[in-house]
Amino acid sequence: MRIMGIDPGIAIVGFGIIDRLGNRLSAVDYGSVQTKAGLNTATRLKQIYDDFTKLFASYQPDVVAIEKLFFNRNVTTAFTVGQARGVMMLAAEEAGVPITEYTPLQVKMGVVGYGQAEKRQVQEMVKVLLRLPAIPKPDDVADALAIAICEGHQMGTKWGIKT
Amino acid sequence: MRIMGIDPGIAIVGFGIIDRLGNRLSAVDYGSVQTKAGLNTATRLKQIYDDFTKLFASYQPDVVAIEKLFFNRNVTTAFTVGQARGVMMLAAEEAGVPITEYTPLQVKMGVVGYGQAEKRQVQEMVKVLLRLPAIPKPDDVADALAIAICEGHQMGTKWGIKT
Repeated sequence: MRIMGIDPGIAIVGFGIIDRLGNRLSAVDYGSVQTKAGLNTATRLKQIYDDFTKLFASYQPDVVAIEKLFFNRNVTTAFTVGQARGVMMLAAEEAGVPITEYTPLQVKMGVVGYGQAEKRQVQEMVKVLLRLPAIPKPDDVADALAIAICEGHQMGTKWGIKT
Repeated sequence: MRIMGIDPGIAIVGFGIIDRLGNRLSAVDYGSVQTKAGLNTATRLKQIYDDFTKLFASYQPDVVAIEKLFFNRNVTTAFTVGQARGVMMLAAEEAGVPITEYTPLQVKMGVVGYGQAEKRQVQEMVKVLLRLPAIPKPDDVADALAIAICEGHQMGTKWGIKT
């Protein structure tokens, strides 16, 4: 079972692809799609869409997990991130990959086990669970892997009860 | 010069296509793309994207004008509308159509001439300026035509100074 996690944004979109075999999770690939601030928004959206279309084709994930909206963010940020998220969801839909969504709270619960976990703790758990040499940079990549792990821990189970 | 105006949304996306010949504006086509609430978001986004890809191919507008974010709306609405807006911007970019953006205030200024205009006044002006038999329904369609008119009045001129 292959999972792609995505941390959406317009300047940096983090992605993390993991495999789950039984209870074992392993990293397949991870990185980020970055678009230049000087480009117009439509160009940046097309770049994100094209890159994710390629990623879906290359890695053929069985499911994609995307971070859900931050209720504490401002309207302009929500709008901008929403636009980028829209084109990624479109790329997933066109590739026939089902989408699941997790809030930051759910990601903390799913990765560290409690919702008050600090960002750094989540990142450390990502490194440990996937046996990585270091915490991936930038943060968006580690966040995307955390979302993928959250889905991996969730799969085929009731929330919070790991198999 | 052909202009497409878009009033973005996820359930109803209004569109209005107008031609400008000299100072004369005329309606070419207008209507809405509607998606069912029961469908998942990715399916709805793909439907909007596919329909707008077809609209761009059929009507070949020279420019597309899209309503800009409402700062007074809440974060969830901004996020949802943002996602839909993202796939429309992508469709425009893929069709090679440049995008302009107008705030609701700018639309009122561009159509009625003053920013405190009521929604009904804007709709009446749309009907009068395009010589339509009635105000198009739903409101999203009239709004999309208003955005197109705003762009039509704007084109090749400085803001607020009509040729």
